[in-house]
Amino acid sequence: MSNAPIVTLLSDFGGSDEYVGVMKGVILQHCPTALPVDICHLLPPQDIGAAARMLAASFPFFPRQSIHLAVIDPGVGTARDILILQTTEHLFIAPDNGLLTPVLQAQNLRHCHAVPPELQSAASATFHGRDIMAPLAGKLASGITAAELAKEISVEQCVVLDPPVVEIGSEQITGEIVGIDHFGNLSTSITAAHIETLGSNVEVAAAGLTIGALHATYDAVREGVLVALMDSRGTLEIARNRGSAAAHLGCRIGDPVVVRLSGGNSTQ
Amino acid sequence: MSNAPIVTLLSDFGGSDEYVGVMKGVILQHCPTALPVDICHLLPPQDIGAAARMLAASFPFFPRQSIHLAVIDPGVGTARDILILQTTEHLFIAPDNGLLTPVLQAQNLRHCHAVPPELQSAASATFHGRDIMAPLAGKLASGITAAELAKEISVEQCVVLDPPVVEIGSEQITGEIVGIDHFGNLSTSITAAHIETLGSNVEVAAAGLTIGALHATYDAVREGVLVALMDSRGTLEIARNRGSAAAHLGCRIGDPVVVRLSGGNSTQ
Amino acid sequence: MSNAPIVTLLSDFGGSDEYVGVMKGVILQHCPTALPVDICHLLPPQDIGAAARMLAASFPFFPRQSIHLAVIDPGVGTARDILILQTTEHLFIAPDNGLLTPVLQAQNLRHCHAVPPELQSAASATFHGRDIMAPLAGKLASGITAAELAKEISVEQCVVLDPPVVEIGSEQITGEIVGIDHFGNLSTSITAAHIETLGSNVEVAAAGLTIGALHATYDAVREGVLVALMDSRGTLEIARNRGSAAAHLGCRIGDPVVVRLSGGNSTQ
Repeated sequence: MSNAPIVTLLSDFGGSDEYVGVMKGVILQHCPTALPVDICHLLPPQDIGAAARMLAASFPFFPRQSIHLAVIDPGVGTARDILILQTTEHLFIAPDNGLLTPVLQAQNLRHCHAVPPELQSAASATFHGRDIMAPLAGKLASGITAAELAKEISVEQCVVLDPPVVEIGSEQITGEIVGIDHFGNLSTSITAAHIETLGSNVEVAAAGLTIGALHATYDAVREGVLVALMDSRGTLEIARNRGSAAAHLGCRIGDPVVVRLSGGNSTQ
Repeated sequence: MSNAPIVTLLSDFGGSDEYVGVMKGVILQHCPTALPVDICHLLPPQDIGAAARMLAASFPFFPRQSIHLAVIDPGVGTARDILILQTTEHLFIAPDNGLLTPVLQAQNLRHCHAVPPELQSAASATFHGRDIMAPLAGKLASGITAAELAKEISVEQCVVLDPPVVEIGSEQITGEIVGIDHFGNLSTSITAAHIETLGSNVEVAAAGLTIGALHATYDAVREGVLVALMDSRGTLEIARNRGSAAAHLGCRIGDPVVVRLSGGNSTQ
Repeated sequence: MSNAPIVTLLSDFGGSDEYVGVMKGVILQHCPTALPVDICHLLPPQDIGAAARMLAASFPFFPRQSIHLAVIDPGVGTARDILILQTTEHLFIAPDNGLLTPVLQAQNLRHCHAVPPELQSAASATFHGRDIMAPLAGKLASGITAAELAKEISVEQCVVLDPPVVEIGSEQITGEIVGIDHFGNLSTSITAAHIETLGSNVEVAAAGLTIGALHATYDAVREGVLVALMDSRGTLEIARNRGSAAAHLGCRIGDPVVVRLSGGNSTQ
């Protein structure tokens, strides 16, 4: 492998401590040619669902053979496996707490290995990212195989998250806000496939307001106006052209979002 | 090219989403030997002027042949060119919205290419950083030329920002606060060249207070005292020794700053 | 050296300016094969003690020959040496203000060089990170020796910080909170060695509350309950299982923390 092995890092460690840098140091100790690449470290503390969604939105854009290390680990120090998953294209390392749900459900998953608690010898009980998972990532980056580091287990043994809430009716789909990005754009649990069940003549509503039909771009509406569109992850988004939809609507994660037949008299 | 091609990244994407990491993934897909380097991603959302100033303050410190990708793109999804500029030393990629003003006005600019809207085929209408600009950066890093990726256009066709406000009189220069850094230091629109027109016997005033003469270092005044000096970008800065000038003065971006002949009776 | 020379960066520069990116550019100008790795840039402005603790907690996890650049520099532009320290394993660059205390006191320290003020020729008086320290880091990364860049001096000449406050009695140890991390975990000045002087039958108290005995993991207590344990740096930590101890207790840096014989009637 002449290119630098890429190791992406995703965590809820924030930016005010040395935790992320230290994990990179450990990776580089095991694989001095690795290139660590940050995905994000400002995930809401211990929010495994948000981490799973962000992982799904990011790993497909990295080169084949990239290694994705995701450390959102509220159970650190307790008895839970550390998983190493291998698809036809990528490698993944994370605690077995549901974070790897999108990979466990992927059709191209090939191998599922686990480091069980009794094999997790660590210097500390509070930082397995540094003491267990970063060494695994560095070793995989250096060419050691998952089979040399862990035991193959069945996918059925692994923790999988419930899918986000979406109720599909004949005239209306009800989903929820699952995330709010830096710009105040609202991500929802509603996908293009969900919306297709209603056809193309639909409108979107949230926070008691009708946002309107689906548009292609933010600038399809005037500055300051709310707009519904499909986001870069392929799910329904509610935005405000050159503004923050979250601040404008006062929405929060978990609030309902409705897609309904346009002109219908359904209400939220 | 045996060294890693450097691709710098500047955006208003913040740190709480996967957007920056995903752009790096795309760059590495097109050029596995590239080294992505962050400049900053906490620019005020959609503040093209601040982005242009930060770009000007950072690119000269990178090696020759570095590629600078700047994505502050309030018009994403609408009809605007993506520019590729080439100076004798560096390459630049950004939307044609004024962000590249300091490069467009540089004497060593050699080529100006554009990807027009009709050639911007993208997976999404909301994330051209990932779908259009990062691929361009990765391709340039891999050795593909701008001429293979875009059409040469005239510099005169490109959007250029108005320069920041500076009024130059015989006894007084009036500029404005253009930025506030992490330490609360106030950047201004007034350069050393502006001040030279008044000579060396000058004093600085802001927020109704006389700050005093120009000093060489923060520690030229006692702890907690305000000080005017030339900053690391070469422009007038107002700081507070071991404190925050912004918090102390209550200043905001756009507030006036005056440099006047010392002992004169000019007022703000 | 065929592996990329690693240069870690630690500062109080925050994330909203170009300062860190520019330092990386300068390092790469001097050593195009270097790999810059961030430790943290959100240290409390000008808090040299916090920087020294973070440096001590991070550098041991990096490969041998790594270069550690730490720029917390309230005295920028004034007369203070820039130090280059060399242990048997690592290189360090920082202002001589106490930041390198843990290295100056390390048993494997081999060389102590200094760039005195009269040899600090810089483009600016306000950004020696960019103009003096990053060039030193880049030159060391490129293979130039400390002896070629600076004068060897005696360790005794260097500024050393006072150790954090710990009072050790026969029945009680009183330390203080020295840091609060992203999760609201409270770091203290009390080490495992301190606690061993009391034996193993101890309890921890802070903010007028008895936290309880030392546990091995956060999950040793129920969700929402406070827990005392040894952290990943090897010092006493007070945490709250799946919550923030800092928010719950209202603690601040400098507040006292007590370890006492369990069941004893000592009070804070």
